[in-house]
Amino acid sequence: MRLDAADPLREFRFQFEIEEHGPIYLDGNSLGRMPKAVRGIVEQELNRWSNRLVRGWPEGWMEAPIRLGSKIAQLLGAEDDEVLVADSTSINLYKLVVAALAYQPGRRRIVTDALNFPSDIYVLQAAARRFNAELTVVPSQDGFRVHPEEIEVALDEDVALLSLTHCAFKSGALHDMPRLTEAAHRVGALALWDLSHSAGAVPVDLKGCRADLAVGCTYKYLNGGPGAPAFLFVRRELQDSLESTIQGWLGHAAPFEFDPDYRPAPGIRRFRDGTPPILSMLAAEAGIDLLLEAGMDQVRAKSIALTEFLIEIWEARLAPLGVALASPRDSNLRGSHVSLRHPDGLAIDQALIEEKGVIPDFRAPDNIRFGVAPLYNSFSEVAEAMLKFEAVLASESYKRFRGRSVSVT
Amino acid sequence: MRLDAADPLREFRFQFEIEEHGPIYLDGNSLGRMPKAVRGIVEQELNRWSNRLVRGWPEGWMEAPIRLGSKIAQLLGAEDDEVLVADSTSINLYKLVVAALAYQPGRRRIVTDALNFPSDIYVLQAAARRFNAELTVVPSQDGFRVHPEEIEVALDEDVALLSLTHCAFKSGALHDMPRLTEAAHRVGALALWDLSHSAGAVPVDLKGCRADLAVGCTYKYLNGGPGAPAFLFVRRELQDSLESTIQGWLGHAAPFEFDPDYRPAPGIRRFRDGTPPILSMLAAEAGIDLLLEAGMDQVRAKSIALTEFLIEIWEARLAPLGVALASPRDSNLRGSHVSLRHPDGLAIDQALIEEKGVIPDFRAPDNIRFGVAPLYNSFSEVAEAMLKFEAVLASESYKRFRGRSVSVT
Repeated sequence: MRLDAADPLREFRFQFEIEEHGPIYLDGNSLGRMPKAVRGIVEQELNRWSNRLVRGWPEGWMEAPIRLGSKIAQLLGAEDDEVLVADSTSINLYKLVVAALAYQPGRRRIVTDALNFPSDIYVLQAAARRFNAELTVVPSQDGFRVHPEEIEVALDEDVALLSLTHCAFKSGALHDMPRLTEAAHRVGALALWDLSHSAGAVPVDLKGCRADLAVGCTYKYLNGGPGAPAFLFVRRELQDSLESTIQGWLGHAAPFEFDPDYRPAPGIRRFRDGTPPILSMLAAEAGIDLLLEAGMDQVRAKSIALTEFLIEIWEARLAPLGVALASPRDSNLRGSHVSLRHPDGLAIDQALIEEKGVIPDFRAPDNIRFGVAPLYNSFSEVAEAMLKFEAVLASESYKRFRGRSVSVT
Repeated sequence: MRLDAADPLREFRFQFEIEEHGPIYLDGNSLGRMPKAVRGIVEQELNRWSNRLVRGWPEGWMEAPIRLGSKIAQLLGAEDDEVLVADSTSINLYKLVVAALAYQPGRRRIVTDALNFPSDIYVLQAAARRFNAELTVVPSQDGFRVHPEEIEVALDEDVALLSLTHCAFKSGALHDMPRLTEAAHRVGALALWDLSHSAGAVPVDLKGCRADLAVGCTYKYLNGGPGAPAFLFVRRELQDSLESTIQGWLGHAAPFEFDPDYRPAPGIRRFRDGTPPILSMLAAEAGIDLLLEAGMDQVRAKSIALTEFLIEIWEARLAPLGVALASPRDSNLRGSHVSLRHPDGLAIDQALIEEKGVIPDFRAPDNIRFGVAPLYNSFSEVAEAMLKFEAVLASESYKRFRGRSVSVT
């Protein structure tokens, strides 16, 4: 295909393990593919465990969360001492939300929106309940976008934190991060961004928009592996003013002095807590390195080209068959996945996987998400997936998958 | 050596990767050795990531924290639905401490002791500060034990939680878990045990002593690998009464419905939160399986024999040279490591590592810890390590290591 031949990132596909005659994988927004370099990294770290034993800690493991954090920072427009790899996205969100409430104890409100990942909303609900804060969840009128002005009217001087997901998990809609960060600052609130669906797919400029806090996962477009540790970002100027919520030993200024009293480490290090899972963490470095090599501008350009191409085929072939677009049509407002809706969405999703070897994913009630990962997805894959979608509809073969329950993807 | 020939667990050593002519490793209480089976597990999971991609979740990853939890439960005298593998020890401790404070909101005190791992004390300090609770840290008179009656007098009807480490990280002293759990219950408090230095080395009977809560790590005597995920235990009768503190999506009753409101899963599952680090988690299964095969009674018998043997050699050869025992002499009161003190402890520790190929670890101000891991340490290793300790003292070779700072082990 001409589009693939002209793709400046086409060679990156060969840096991933991709089975010949395997499925067309359009679910990198749930779990990214495995970079080939992962096997070598894991072998090296197993050898280190086996041979160097506890000496592995001073010989690289201890600093890994900081070192990988500084690499991720480059993908997010952050300074290299503003990002830490640690824990899961939920844990990091909890830590930063509680820290934000403690930072301005007079303020009792948290604002989010209904397009945030439900897990984030659960964490905000938990923190609000425990700390007697009020959580405002701004609804979405159309189910796939929340306009900035709708969030802005929810902000007032009682808001401690505006916590949003940059790229909505279901629709892929992007928030205007500079505008909403500025809006939070106007009322004196902090702004926290969940970048799980942006990191490695949509450039963000945390420094440029003066974002205060951010979290995100490494197993989607960063291709870090199943449940690879998450990251957190704290703007440098805030680092020494925010308390670490959980206060584990690795956030201590001198963890190996075994001081009976906690003294927070300076800078981003104070947000460390327990001992990090080294194999899962270091395996994530391979994918991060590939993105640094490709560059986020090229990644974004290809991501837009792939989703535009997908939407053009949808428009020509699937829209007439009753499939609706549930993502923004304007690529400036869209991340790296496209949601298509059909009343038989779940059955179609199952038919695509089992009959056609195409792997998207399903999000209730009727969304089929197609994630495009610019480092390994091709234009031909997108075309083939859409034509198979059309074939499933035309043959009505999906009907035999009706009544399935939602699977764990 | 006769003792090794008579050791019923001697064959287990061959289940670990042990370099020929490598160091004598007596630091399994910091990071356990690598079981040989780890490489196969990791390869299998990398293949699953590579080939099955997101389908790995329903095909084993999603249930791994529950499945491994039920195996660890067997090592702890717990029911198979009372233990979950998740996060780090610090995070799990925080979650359960906050849940315990919320469980009986009228009670405002937490009691611990000065022999608890400093990280645990930091987490308790953080939780106490945020939730306006008062933390009592019962001091140790002799620096290596706290007697049960000293803790009992600190308990009253205002105590929500007694949080102790079963086996003290520095001295190896064991608390009387049944007695102190009962003491907590007598005043209506919950009892939480950190089992990091017990799991896989000292049998505990969580059910028999009616412990309420427990946490612990998997990278010491469970041989799970660097930073392998920790575990948490919640007594079955309490599971549905305690709130999950962080409330991430995997603790939801139906995480894939993406319900905007949190509904806790029943049982131990509600204590899940974010997505777990699969490689690090599944790598830990190899070590757990070896312990199940060996049986905790045999493990404990050999652990006692090894520490008794070490102490006998200390008494004969090292005590006369000014080395003090900083662990209980009575094996019923001692876990699986022995602390020896010397004013030049750090320099001696360094000399042992660099000149003699013996790896203990050092804990400020002057403790050298010798951990014995019954699955792979032999009596000859213990004897050789002690004789090398004697040689370092006799030759005064350690003096050139004076002035070193505490290393990261």
